[in-house]
Amino acid sequence: MTARVSIEEMNRIAREEVPLVGNMGIAFTTIEDGFAVARLPFRDDLLRPGGTITGPAMMGVADVVLYACVLSRIGIVKLAVTTSLNVNFLRRPQPGDLVAEGRLIKCGKRLAYGEVTLAAADALGDPVCHVTGTYSIPPDR
Amino acid sequence: MTARVSIEEMNRIAREEVPLVGNMGIAFTTIEDGFAVARLPFRDDLLRPGGTITGPAMMGVADVVLYACVLSRIGIVKLAVTTSLNVNFLRRPQPGDLVAEGRLIKCGKRLAYGEVTLAAADALGDPVCHVTGTYSIPPDR
Amino acid sequence: MTARVSIEEMNRIAREEVPLVGNMGIAFTTIEDGFAVARLPFRDDLLRPGGTITGPAMMGVADVVLYACVLSRIGIVKLAVTTSLNVNFLRRPQPGDLVAEGRLIKCGKRLAYGEVTLAAADALGDPVCHVTGTYSIPPDR
Amino acid sequence: MTARVSIEEMNRIAREEVPLVGNMGIAFTTIEDGFAVARLPFRDDLLRPGGTITGPAMMGVADVVLYACVLSRIGIVKLAVTTSLNVNFLRRPQPGDLVAEGRLIKCGKRLAYGEVTLAAADALGDPVCHVTGTYSIPPDR
Repeated sequence: MTARVSIEEMNRIAREEVPLVGNMGIAFTTIEDGFAVARLPFRDDLLRPGGTITGPAMMGVADVVLYACVLSRIGIVKLAVTTSLNVNFLRRPQPGDLVAEGRLIKCGKRLAYGEVTLAAADALGDPVCHVTGTYSIPPDR
Repeated sequence: MTARVSIEEMNRIAREEVPLVGNMGIAFTTIEDGFAVARLPFRDDLLRPGGTITGPAMMGVADVVLYACVLSRIGIVKLAVTTSLNVNFLRRPQPGDLVAEGRLIKCGKRLAYGEVTLAAADALGDPVCHVTGTYSIPPDR
Repeated sequence: MTARVSIEEMNRIAREEVPLVGNMGIAFTTIEDGFAVARLPFRDDLLRPGGTITGPAMMGVADVVLYACVLSRIGIVKLAVTTSLNVNFLRRPQPGDLVAEGRLIKCGKRLAYGEVTLAAADALGDPVCHVTGTYSIPPDR
Repeated sequence: MTARVSIEEMNRIAREEVPLVGNMGIAFTTIEDGFAVARLPFRDDLLRPGGTITGPAMMGVADVVLYACVLSRIGIVKLAVTTSLNVNFLRRPQPGDLVAEGRLIKCGKRLAYGEVTLAAADALGDPVCHVTGTYSIPPDR
């Protein structure tokens, strides 16, 4: 199946409609049906004490990447909303770009569930953060 | 016991050292031993499609409020880091200030665990988001 | 409000309809609206390597206590089902009875969300396990 | 790398040392380094109201499969203990055997993190439950 949202549409949605995350500079690089990859370019204000990238930056990216996975399957249903996210921080990411790869594990009529793995752009095999989450799909889309 | 971090210190830490969240305007109003309350003033860029407050804003606030709970117990050990957060979104928060109240459930030598409840400032009895999380405490503090 | 399920009904439901947990010997001691307490009597087969009580015993009890909280609010709607549980093990429980106390944090039309805290019966102030979970409520109850 | 625990050893550990889950009849079928698969044969006492398999059965199996993944990497360190499990129930499993497949996502010195996917034995592509969890590894192993 083809993705029902394009990279261009998803970058615009992130930038214009989820500005808190869009303004961090997130850029999608791949969107397929139930699958999405985005890159978060490094910026100084993403750091936290200790000089590693702050958790909320990773959580924001993961949430929007999962949103892209959902929209890639059901089309641009903007009122799909997160109902839960479970976030596990596995390593402290050093300053540098991050890559987040998400995929749907299940997509029913009312709920979609998936996972997102984040890694440093130059060490994709060593995840720094793993997220699972559920989106609620509105009945009247 | 007295809190080992003050409101002033915690506001400064949020603003200067976790700028991604500090720049959202989070302001602590209460810090006691193992307990912290902060307010997130409403701003337009906190919205998401549908006109409600975006999840990443709430997650960022919850993470920093839990950080304050940990520092209130162990002192300013900045290298305490989140290892996991579980976030449940209970209602879509309408535009307006949010209040986040956190408390430690357990604080051991290596791990601290607590919960944060977020609600609209004018409807504190109806939580919009509930978060539990674990912080790892460095051994050599 | 009064609880819409009684201690006797809930003990019978656990024993006859969720035998995997009921057969562990769980016994409810308090049920109020949106609130339930149960005791798990110690038995040797609840142990795991190291001589502490096994996680799955605590998870099973937490799930049924949360079920009781939901039924106490909406009445005996047996098809209410768990959609997610987040379980945090805080201490290794020594051999002995456990007490699990649950409460609803939110109960909407479709979803209920609550938390359960487990502790040794002789050290209720030191939780050994903290659980949050979501139940889905069938639309046609 | 070779798995550091065998199928026979793991079946014995489940049966003798985690009897609550072992007695449900769990049987490992594959163990590789950081990877394990087990089958849970159907039994009537695994049902819950509505005639589907109860959540605690799936949580118990997931916990032991993740334990096997950890032991397959670090060897038989029985005091490795679960610190958190996040469980998402995706479909109501009809009566029948379940298969649980686990894999490590990260294994550090102190913490291991992985995921387990459960499905009906005759519909492996449609997961019924997805679990992520963290094990704590004792320092003095």
